[in-house]
Amino acid sequence: MRPDYFEPDARLIAQARERIAAHVVHTPLLESPVLNRQLGARILIKPENLQRAGSFKFRGALNRALQLTPEQRAGGVVAWSSGNHGLALSYVARELGIKATILMPQEAPKTKIDGVRANGAIVRLYDKTKEVREEIGAQIAAETGAVIVPPYDDPYVMTGQATLGAELAEQAAQVGASLDAALFSCSGGGLVAGAACGVHSLVPDVAIYSVEPEHYDGMVRSLAAGTQTKAPAKAASICDALLVVKPGDLTFPVCKQHLAGGLSVSDTELKEAIRFAYRELKLVIEPGGAAPLAALLAGKIDVVGKTIGIVLSGGNVDAEKFARYITETH
Amino acid sequence: MRPDYFEPDARLIAQARERIAAHVVHTPLLESPVLNRQLGARILIKPENLQRAGSFKFRGALNRALQLTPEQRAGGVVAWSSGNHGLALSYVARELGIKATILMPQEAPKTKIDGVRANGAIVRLYDKTKEVREEIGAQIAAETGAVIVPPYDDPYVMTGQATLGAELAEQAAQVGASLDAALFSCSGGGLVAGAACGVHSLVPDVAIYSVEPEHYDGMVRSLAAGTQTKAPAKAASICDALLVVKPGDLTFPVCKQHLAGGLSVSDTELKEAIRFAYRELKLVIEPGGAAPLAALLAGKIDVVGKTIGIVLSGGNVDAEKFARYITETH
Repeated sequence: MRPDYFEPDARLIAQARERIAAHVVHTPLLESPVLNRQLGARILIKPENLQRAGSFKFRGALNRALQLTPEQRAGGVVAWSSGNHGLALSYVARELGIKATILMPQEAPKTKIDGVRANGAIVRLYDKTKEVREEIGAQIAAETGAVIVPPYDDPYVMTGQATLGAELAEQAAQVGASLDAALFSCSGGGLVAGAACGVHSLVPDVAIYSVEPEHYDGMVRSLAAGTQTKAPAKAASICDALLVVKPGDLTFPVCKQHLAGGLSVSDTELKEAIRFAYRELKLVIEPGGAAPLAALLAGKIDVVGKTIGIVLSGGNVDAEKFARYITETH
Repeated sequence: MRPDYFEPDARLIAQARERIAAHVVHTPLLESPVLNRQLGARILIKPENLQRAGSFKFRGALNRALQLTPEQRAGGVVAWSSGNHGLALSYVARELGIKATILMPQEAPKTKIDGVRANGAIVRLYDKTKEVREEIGAQIAAETGAVIVPPYDDPYVMTGQATLGAELAEQAAQVGASLDAALFSCSGGGLVAGAACGVHSLVPDVAIYSVEPEHYDGMVRSLAAGTQTKAPAKAASICDALLVVKPGDLTFPVCKQHLAGGLSVSDTELKEAIRFAYRELKLVIEPGGAAPLAALLAGKIDVVGKTIGIVLSGGNVDAEKFARYITETH
C-alpha cells in the first residue's frame, strides 16, 4: 500500500546508497572554468548521463527492484516510461534475471525504444491520445503477476533518486564548496523530490529548484497554487523525458516542503545548453537532462558569487537530433 | 639543455602530481557494462576529454609552465601544435597571466583555432607544405624572448603526461582491478611514453600499447625497426591530433623500454569508436582521442578475460564533423 506522505530521511537514504553501491556509477563532480567565468559563480556539475543506462533513473529502478521477493521476481516487472525509466528498469531486470515489460509512447526516441529492446525487455508501444498507460500497466500486472514499478510515485524509487542528492552534497563538501542552491530537472518530480531530500539530509539550508520545459511547467504552477495543478501542454517540447503535466501524488507534497521554487526553460534555451555541454563539457546530454544548465545559462535565477549544484540527468538522445542541435546556429 | 635520455621516475611523477593538483581535473575512471560484455573483458576508461582545455595536454603544458622563472614568464611562451597542445598552453598561459603565441597548421579544426584565440593567445597559422614549424617557433623565441614549450619532447611535458598513467593505475587499484594492459593514443609519443612511466611507477608489469592512425604509424614502425622511423603519411586521416610521422627524440627511447607493442587503426574504426562513445558512454571524443577504444573494438589485441585501461585523450572536435561521424551508417 502506498502511504499518503513519504519522505526519504537520512537513514533510508544511507541504506539505499549501501544497497545500490555495487551497481551504480559514482558519477564525478565536474567544474568548468569557462562556465564559472561566464556566470560569475561556482557551478558543480554532476553528469548523471554517465550513469548505467544513461540516466539517473537507474538509481530508483534498482532500489525498487532490489526490494522484490523471490516470488515477485518470478512474475517480472512492468512499467510505463517515456524512455529513461524503461531503459533503467530493463537494464536492472536483465542484471537480476527478471522479465520486464515496458510501455512506451509511440513517439519515444528511437534510441530509447531500441535500447529497451536490446536490454531484453518486451516493449509495448501505446498511443498517448487514445490509451491510458496506467490502465494498460495495471492490466498487464493483473494478467501476468508482474509488479508495477512506477516512474516516480513510489517510496523506493524516490529514495533511489535521493541518493543522487546526497552524493552531490557530499562531493561538494569534498571539494570545499558550500552549496547555496541546487537545480534538478523535473517531470513527475521523482528526481527533484528525492534529490532535495538527499541534499537536505546532509545540508539543510540549500535552496532547491525544479526545472521544467515551457508548457510542461506543472511544478511551477503547483508550487504557486499550493496544490497539484496541470500545465497547459499546448505546444511541443524537445524534452521527451519531461512531458508529465503535473507533479505526482507522492512527489508534490515533498516538493512543497523542500523546494525554494520552480523554473522553466524554452527549447531554444535547452539547445543552447546542449551545445554548451558539447563544446565545453564534452558531454552528450539529452534535452531533458540539460534543463538545469539551460536555466543557469539563461539567467533564470541570480547566481553571481554563489555556489550552485546541478545534475545533468540523462544522455539518451537520437544521433540525428543531437547532430542537429549541435550544428544549429541562430 | 635537453638530456639525451629522460624517463620520469616515481618521485618526479609524484612531485608533478602535487604541483598540478590544484588546477587539473582528477578525471574519473568509468566502466561500461555494454563494452565489457561486448569484449568479454573489463575495460577501465579514463575520460581525459573532461580535462581542462578538453584534452590530456593540459597536464604537460601546466607542468612545464609552472617551471618558468619570473623572468621567463615575462617573455611569454611559444609553441607549435595541431591544436590540443596549443589549447592547453594558451589556457595555462591565461591562468598564469603569461603571453602565448601558438603556431597552428592552416587546416587545424576551427574549434581548436577559435579556442586558442578565445584563451587570449596569438595564433600564427602556417602552411605545412612550405614552412617548418620548429623554425618559425625558434624565430619567434629569438625575437621576443618567449620560451618554447614543445608538444612532447620535453622532460616536464612528459612528466606531466606521466601523471595520467599514475592516476589510471591508482584508480584501477581503487576499484579492485589489476591491469593487464593499457592503451594510449600516440602522435609524437609524449602521452604514451609519459603515461607508460606513470603506470609502471606503480605497477611494473602492465603491457603498454601505443595506438596510431593508419598511415601515421611511426611508432609501430620505429618499434619494429628499433630506431626512429617515419611513417609514409600517404593518405589523409581524420585524426588531426595524431599526424606526427615519427616518435620524438626523447619519447622514442622511453617507448622502446616501456612498450609491449604498437597498434594502428583506420578512419572507419575510429568513427565506430566515436559512435560507441556517443551512444554508450555519452562522451564527446575527437578522432585522435578515440584511438585506444577503436583498437579494442576492432580486436587489434586479444583482451578476453583481461583488464585493460584506456585513456580517451581529447574531445575537441568541430560540431559539423562530430555530427557527421555519429550519424554516418555503414
